[in-house]
Amino acid sequence: MAVPPPARPRRLLPLSLGLFQVALLLCFALFFTYDKPSAQAEDGSLVANKIYSTFPLFQDIQVMLVVGLGLLLAFLPRYGLSALTHNFLLFNFSTQWALVLQGLLHHFHHGQVHLDLHSLLTAEFAAVTVLISVGAILGRASPCQLLVVAACEVPAYLASEWAIVTRLGILDVGGTITIHVFSCYFGLGVSKALFRTMQQPAHPKESPTHSSNFLSLVGTLILWVFWPSFVAVLCQPGDAQHRAILNTLLAMSASAVTTVVASSLLDKDGKLSPSHLQNGSLAGGVAIGAVADMAVPPVAALALGSLSAMTCVLGFRFLTPLLARKLVLQDQCGIHNLHGLPGILGALASTVAILAASTDTSGPRFSQVPPDVGDAGEAAWGQGGQALCQAAGLAVAIGGSVFAGLLTGAALRPRCLAQPPEPLCFDDSLYFKMEDQAQSPGLGGT
Amino acid sequence: MAVPPPARPRRLLPLSLGLFQVALLLCFALFFTYDKPSAQAEDGSLVANKIYSTFPLFQDIQVMLVVGLGLLLAFLPRYGLSALTHNFLLFNFSTQWALVLQGLLHHFHHGQVHLDLHSLLTAEFAAVTVLISVGAILGRASPCQLLVVAACEVPAYLASEWAIVTRLGILDVGGTITIHVFSCYFGLGVSKALFRTMQQPAHPKESPTHSSNFLSLVGTLILWVFWPSFVAVLCQPGDAQHRAILNTLLAMSASAVTTVVASSLLDKDGKLSPSHLQNGSLAGGVAIGAVADMAVPPVAALALGSLSAMTCVLGFRFLTPLLARKLVLQDQCGIHNLHGLPGILGALASTVAILAASTDTSGPRFSQVPPDVGDAGEAAWGQGGQALCQAAGLAVAIGGSVFAGLLTGAALRPRCLAQPPEPLCFDDSLYFKMEDQAQSPGLGGT
Amino acid sequence: MAVPPPARPRRLLPLSLGLFQVALLLCFALFFTYDKPSAQAEDGSLVANKIYSTFPLFQDIQVMLVVGLGLLLAFLPRYGLSALTHNFLLFNFSTQWALVLQGLLHHFHHGQVHLDLHSLLTAEFAAVTVLISVGAILGRASPCQLLVVAACEVPAYLASEWAIVTRLGILDVGGTITIHVFSCYFGLGVSKALFRTMQQPAHPKESPTHSSNFLSLVGTLILWVFWPSFVAVLCQPGDAQHRAILNTLLAMSASAVTTVVASSLLDKDGKLSPSHLQNGSLAGGVAIGAVADMAVPPVAALALGSLSAMTCVLGFRFLTPLLARKLVLQDQCGIHNLHGLPGILGALASTVAILAASTDTSGPRFSQVPPDVGDAGEAAWGQGGQALCQAAGLAVAIGGSVFAGLLTGAALRPRCLAQPPEPLCFDDSLYFKMEDQAQSPGLGGT
Repeated sequence: MAVPPPARPRRLLPLSLGLFQVALLLCFALFFTYDKPSAQAEDGSLVANKIYSTFPLFQDIQVMLVVGLGLLLAFLPRYGLSALTHNFLLFNFSTQWALVLQGLLHHFHHGQVHLDLHSLLTAEFAAVTVLISVGAILGRASPCQLLVVAACEVPAYLASEWAIVTRLGILDVGGTITIHVFSCYFGLGVSKALFRTMQQPAHPKESPTHSSNFLSLVGTLILWVFWPSFVAVLCQPGDAQHRAILNTLLAMSASAVTTVVASSLLDKDGKLSPSHLQNGSLAGGVAIGAVADMAVPPVAALALGSLSAMTCVLGFRFLTPLLARKLVLQDQCGIHNLHGLPGILGALASTVAILAASTDTSGPRFSQVPPDVGDAGEAAWGQGGQALCQAAGLAVAIGGSVFAGLLTGAALRPRCLAQPPEPLCFDDSLYFKMEDQAQSPGLGGT
Repeated sequence: MAVPPPARPRRLLPLSLGLFQVALLLCFALFFTYDKPSAQAEDGSLVANKIYSTFPLFQDIQVMLVVGLGLLLAFLPRYGLSALTHNFLLFNFSTQWALVLQGLLHHFHHGQVHLDLHSLLTAEFAAVTVLISVGAILGRASPCQLLVVAACEVPAYLASEWAIVTRLGILDVGGTITIHVFSCYFGLGVSKALFRTMQQPAHPKESPTHSSNFLSLVGTLILWVFWPSFVAVLCQPGDAQHRAILNTLLAMSASAVTTVVASSLLDKDGKLSPSHLQNGSLAGGVAIGAVADMAVPPVAALALGSLSAMTCVLGFRFLTPLLARKLVLQDQCGIHNLHGLPGILGALASTVAILAASTDTSGPRFSQVPPDVGDAGEAAWGQGGQALCQAAGLAVAIGGSVFAGLLTGAALRPRCLAQPPEPLCFDDSLYFKMEDQAQSPGLGGT
Repeated sequence: MAVPPPARPRRLLPLSLGLFQVALLLCFALFFTYDKPSAQAEDGSLVANKIYSTFPLFQDIQVMLVVGLGLLLAFLPRYGLSALTHNFLLFNFSTQWALVLQGLLHHFHHGQVHLDLHSLLTAEFAAVTVLISVGAILGRASPCQLLVVAACEVPAYLASEWAIVTRLGILDVGGTITIHVFSCYFGLGVSKALFRTMQQPAHPKESPTHSSNFLSLVGTLILWVFWPSFVAVLCQPGDAQHRAILNTLLAMSASAVTTVVASSLLDKDGKLSPSHLQNGSLAGGVAIGAVADMAVPPVAALALGSLSAMTCVLGFRFLTPLLARKLVLQDQCGIHNLHGLPGILGALASTVAILAASTDTSGPRFSQVPPDVGDAGEAAWGQGGQALCQAAGLAVAIGGSVFAGLLTGAALRPRCLAQPPEPLCFDDSLYFKMEDQAQSPGLGGT
């Protein structure tokens, strides 16, 4: 099972990454600074309280993205090191890139950008979109190509977020539309433009083993546990955050149980499919984001969690093969089932929740409409307007992301980006020096 | 090593689970609601502070139960996916079931149940008992049987908790008696009634491999790290919680060291047994729960940790084989050694601690006696009365749990619950669609 | 591949450990106590707030040391259980030992030592030095030898910390000099004195497999995620802590990206080396400790992170083989590359940062000089003096640790400490009862 050596040394990745680091240093040297130390003691104590309230959630989110997602992606048994490493590299590269762009675009005052934990957090949210999108082409793209995706997706995300949150004023505290729907359709666009009409045959290294399925499921469980932190971290402290945590917990709990039901019903022997579990259990967390902090009753969170898990499992069973056959669409991790379908479901749920809200509870909720939409008169919005916004935001997110994704995918085609040839796909030995290449077949292999 | 296909499609699991989800939705729709938004700003800030103080501990506990315990149970090399998944499913099912029961029994006011983070937390505590109990029959019971155990154990736990905490007024902040002792003897009761006098022969798939032992030990370490959160989460904020954290840390640290001593001394070559490490290191955490927030000196926590680790290791070495031989009692994970013996030790320690308490420190401590016992006159309790309560509580927990466990075990016997035949035990391929059945022998197998 | 059985029962480890536990109990019984319960309600609320602000960080650090570091050390495929267990045992033993020593030396008042979460935290910091140092001799030393290292290193660390922090007054909030530099050179001293001029041949069980590399990388990621908690936990609450968190996040992000650049550039095929990733990604965290809470601009943190990752990777590629050849120095985990070189870099950076600080920001910073240096007059220190202190502290840390390490290493030579013979190194079966010795070759082996 020896792997043929790659034809020539690849220097493009380290050189371009190195160049980026130098540019980053320059940019930080010129523009970035921390806040001045607090002059008054009360200000210092405010900063301290802000840290105590945010930092534990921030750490939870970092565990999700770096450890949980990395493990989840390691279901390809010979590609575990690459999945973990590429995810880690993309996370850092995209966060840095988003820090610079966000800083210069949104926080540039008097020639300086003030950095704080909140700006790092929002930069990581931008990075999440990249980590999700590349799931569609996992194992078939080179690290250079992945970096190009990141370089293009971060500005596209910022533009989309500006359009749908700042301009349209959608409510989406957990990133259902802005993050999940956007990144899913961006990723599918990339995949379509990159692989075009090449039917990808089943690859011998593509099948998970017992051991890689196990580790991937551990990744799912880590994501499952910390998901409430992801949804609630940007909520208004107090009641709204409390509600967001509870709604997310309920939705994810319903997802977990419903995934078992759906996966078992779909199999003629009643057996569970590991990939259903790995993804379906998280579907509720994707869907709940748009309504998490709204005044919906607990049953709505449960129902949304159940429904999205069902959609996710059905998507894996029926839609993914259909898309692969009809549209020749490659979606390695099934991001459409985990992020696309439940995301749309969540967006629709938010429309319904807004329309169904009784007038006496709508007051506090609409106070979350961003202030710069306020000049239209908050009262004038009303429930219908807001519901329309949610739908429009969903449409903009899908349209914009498909368009940007297709462009990005086309940019991945040049030969210099070193897309691995088909037989070398899904193989760590292409990217890692392995002392035991001949010996070890990967996670739990033969 | 191909596994014969199961005889017929199994639909009972998904259908009954699905039915439960529908009933849950109905029940939530009719009765469950969130608290009204806080009218005053100060109330909102109170809610926010409550979240900051509780939520990080809550997340720690979720990591323990979903990731840590799941990994710990994965010591069976071909049963890792099932161990992880069944643990996850039972956790969610039991939490939902406990939410409903607790809500309707304890929090039903004016036709409504108000849900908050605290009620979710106590529901998860009920779920813990199920996760512990099924350790006795791990690998030999079908998911359907596990769900029946959960369905029966949650109400039994609530009844037992009502009797010993609300009525008898025992002090047990970390659940030593209410959770660990109860769930252990419930699980042993189930095992006894299920397997009756069938001597279970050693099964070829029962032996842990190097790799499954490693992953299981990682699970132990995760549980070990977060255990203080489990013990301290329900403590009075301030001194009592501080003391509970410190006592738990000391007890667990002593457990870890003593386990190495005991395991090494018991082996003729001085080698360690992985199962001793996986369990003994946690014994101190089980035992300390009943005294964690009492005004005991640090040395007591250390001594209790040491003693319980010793008991646990001796239990594995001598008691488990004895029980298997004399009582034909099947205890797959050794829950009697990790939860039963250290639990009893902790209960006895709490009696001693109460009797030994000097009168000047007993004041603040007994203020934790639940308010509805107060009508007997708090002062009248005194130390002797409280010590007696602890002992009585232990007796009630053991008696009640054995009884309820035996009944539950008998309820698992119907053929429709699909108990796996002996040769198919401990095998993921019975419950999971595996693409590589022929290839992969499991976690680090041959 | 059967391993010959060890010649004779080993009882030294459990007996000496057991004796230590008894002595610990005695010592705790005589001297250790908790703080009195707070008399006023405000004091109770202060304690509560202290817990909320410290405990989540404390838990993060425990995860790092017990789970993250344990996994990182499991890169030796047949030595995973031992790596995890020895790390866990040393962590507990060293913490207990440090608690006693620190308590008696620093906190002994009126015949009593008052224990709180802060004293446990600083005891764990002492334990960290042991966990780092033994990396140099991982797999070639018996548990008895490791305990001797711990017994010697903890007092050496306390002496070194007293000299450089209390006496010299260096600024080192994240332990760059006091912990990382000290433990690295201590470990190298031990290794040198233990193995002297024996050239260690490449051992067949020394090569990581795909699977052990994967798990080790997961350990790195866990350490990477929680590192900011380690650096910031002892900072002044408020601005300084906020800055420490941000600086650490930036440094580690730069490390991660630069490691990929450097590792890829050093390989002729552009491939990454797993060991570079496992270590280089963390180098920024080591280096940033000494400057994390200073008023340095964000670009400095990025640059320091990049530089230290580069140094680490270059160290692995060039310096380690050189030291092994010229000095016959054994460094199994490459602690010199991860802790030594980045530590020195961080110390130098702190000197530069102090010298470069503008006078108007130096005010708040130097207020962190420990109070008992204050009698020399804080103003008299000035920037030059403080910078000199940092350099002097570095020199003292290196000199003292090499000296103490050499002495400790010499103390490891007696035959009774049971150093494993060369062919039995790196093998779990020497320390663990394995039911499947013949079958399972370890983590992902052939």
